[in-house]
Amino acid sequence: MTRGFEEIDGELAVGGVPVSRLAARVGSTPFFAYDRRLLTERVALLRRHLPADLQLSYAIKANPMPAVVQHMSGLVDSFDVASSIEMGVALDTTMPSNRISFAGPGKTDAELRQAVAAGVTIELESENEAARVARIGSELSIRPRVAVRVNPDFSVKGSGMRMGGGPQQFGVDAERVPALLKELASTDLDVLGFHCFAGSQNLKADIIAEAQRRTVELLLRLAEDAVAPVRYLNLGGGFGIPYTEKDVALDLEVIGENLATLMRDEVRPRLPETRVVTELGRFLVGEAGVYVTRVVDRKESRGKTYLVVDGGLHHQLAASGNFGQVIRRNYPIAVANRIDREPAEQVTVVGCLCTPLDLLGDNVTLPEAGVGDLVVLYQAGAYGLTASPTAFLSHPAPAEVLL
Amino acid sequence: MTRGFEEIDGELAVGGVPVSRLAARVGSTPFFAYDRRLLTERVALLRRHLPADLQLSYAIKANPMPAVVQHMSGLVDSFDVASSIEMGVALDTTMPSNRISFAGPGKTDAELRQAVAAGVTIELESENEAARVARIGSELSIRPRVAVRVNPDFSVKGSGMRMGGGPQQFGVDAERVPALLKELASTDLDVLGFHCFAGSQNLKADIIAEAQRRTVELLLRLAEDAVAPVRYLNLGGGFGIPYTEKDVALDLEVIGENLATLMRDEVRPRLPETRVVTELGRFLVGEAGVYVTRVVDRKESRGKTYLVVDGGLHHQLAASGNFGQVIRRNYPIAVANRIDREPAEQVTVVGCLCTPLDLLGDNVTLPEAGVGDLVVLYQAGAYGLTASPTAFLSHPAPAEVLL
Repeated sequence: MTRGFEEIDGELAVGGVPVSRLAARVGSTPFFAYDRRLLTERVALLRRHLPADLQLSYAIKANPMPAVVQHMSGLVDSFDVASSIEMGVALDTTMPSNRISFAGPGKTDAELRQAVAAGVTIELESENEAARVARIGSELSIRPRVAVRVNPDFSVKGSGMRMGGGPQQFGVDAERVPALLKELASTDLDVLGFHCFAGSQNLKADIIAEAQRRTVELLLRLAEDAVAPVRYLNLGGGFGIPYTEKDVALDLEVIGENLATLMRDEVRPRLPETRVVTELGRFLVGEAGVYVTRVVDRKESRGKTYLVVDGGLHHQLAASGNFGQVIRRNYPIAVANRIDREPAEQVTVVGCLCTPLDLLGDNVTLPEAGVGDLVVLYQAGAYGLTASPTAFLSHPAPAEVLL
Repeated sequence: MTRGFEEIDGELAVGGVPVSRLAARVGSTPFFAYDRRLLTERVALLRRHLPADLQLSYAIKANPMPAVVQHMSGLVDSFDVASSIEMGVALDTTMPSNRISFAGPGKTDAELRQAVAAGVTIELESENEAARVARIGSELSIRPRVAVRVNPDFSVKGSGMRMGGGPQQFGVDAERVPALLKELASTDLDVLGFHCFAGSQNLKADIIAEAQRRTVELLLRLAEDAVAPVRYLNLGGGFGIPYTEKDVALDLEVIGENLATLMRDEVRPRLPETRVVTELGRFLVGEAGVYVTRVVDRKESRGKTYLVVDGGLHHQLAASGNFGQVIRRNYPIAVANRIDREPAEQVTVVGCLCTPLDLLGDNVTLPEAGVGDLVVLYQAGAYGLTASPTAFLSHPAPAEVLL
């Protein structure tokens, strides 16, 4: 019912603060609230399942709130960033710059210059990008740290998003990597290793395990062509979280055992010293956050009851079913200040925007609620605020708090 | 080819400035550029087709850039706003506050208070909202100007979005309006009239004409129950613009003739003095803007050519096919600094974001283009910047210019 959050005095609580008190403390609704304890517990859960010599990287694009990134810096081994602004947030933590990687297909010269100067690892997405980084390094008299992002020669089914196999804007096609490595040997680039990312938001452990097997096999094969010793292998991630009733949480046992076998039997015999990383975003933070809204109207229309809240798709686009989804399904939703009450009626929860797209809970069964009550959407810790059209209809930006 | 924009020296030009010079003037890409002349021409085109005694309202949610709203204030008769921030933008023009209406299902007390104080017309979405407005008016000792938004007892097929008929979060069900009017008669609200909005982004003139007929019929019927004289009728709008190759532009002849007949035969005999309004957003501004990006990489992957640009779905979500669309279709796209060249090759244009969703032109045929060239997406004047997840991956916000 509370999905890992606490219940205090009949209310949902985040970081020990009941949601009605939290709303008063924030001073306005809607807002996002993230729970520090749940972030810590999630990393600990992963550490229990993952082999000890596999490092954990946080892809901060999932939630770049500076306070969240600061907290994560004490828990994970490295960060991945996707823009220079994210890089700035990462560099403001105590994470060493050589534990920050920068990936993305459209890095500008200005971004590459900042990344080279910062000493972060640039994950090269193309031959052209490699040449630009080499030029910038020479201009700055700094030897850039780089890794080659590989577009694998296989693809993974069952991902929310497929990002490898076939033609792709991401990375260098696996079969062209050996030639690129030869070319890079004559440049002044510090080539650390490889990155491969097959897909994201996958809930099927056996498919992730299979992708990891093929990724390890591919990267070990490419490592044979490496001119310098391979010091870094990023196996990607793609661990999904359940958003709808039909989703079943990922089986970490299967993934952990598979990774342990791969590390012991395949990676370590050949690359005993290499830093091997799994990179996760959504899986680390997605379930640690709620989006809190307040009911501003309760109305009946032709036999249907609507709760109109002061939030909406401008803050939680994916929950409205409009961000790349083909079929809309309800995200988990609750009346947070009546979390102890039994479901009593069927209502439809809509946002405050003047568009029929702004649907947050379609025919959901909730305890009775009215004007002033607090409705939360769960699974709001990743790709919530930053993946939503915040300026849509020019409503004020919501607050974010970490407790 | 240039879709109403000029061509100067082989380049697409906005407001007389070739796009490469414009990019230098703006100082960075990507950016949005809107053409003042196209806005003016679009309003003039509508005025030619619409009956002289039908007023034109601009729904500024389609493009709330203050400079655009200022320009529109000299062209249209009234504004509609959807939030207090939009209301502020509208009030900063010379548009009189009694020509500004405020619609939306989730207006907060704070927003209603601002609207009452400003003297704008509040389009009541529910009985509860009516009671709140009356209370706030009494607290402020100001008589609120209101209209009743009606959820019609019919629905319109063929709209991009259906917003009336059946149960809805918008407005008061038509059959309940007479009772509400009686109730309102005992409050200190200045009830001006009615608003009805059947749907949006509709490209079928006959369906819009039918919706207008039924809207007029419904509102005239409700006007008979009005206690005070009806001084305001808002017939909605919903005029669509073509986004993809399969779309055919709206036939304004059909719509204009239908409205002329309705005004002459139905409305004026019964309501000779009433201000009658059609409210349009996208149709007024959507085709007057382009989204300008620069190519940062050109890469081959397994037989496919990619142009990677420095913009993406974080600024033009709908063009990526991820904002509520079921089937993704390409929006019109061009190499703006080579607008005079013949199409020469098939490429896929992707944005800079590290996600496969960031697809701007899938297998499009364009003149040859490489790093540094400027790629534009047309139809970017409405629901572009504000309807996109600008903070996604924390890239800088794009500029907007009006020329």
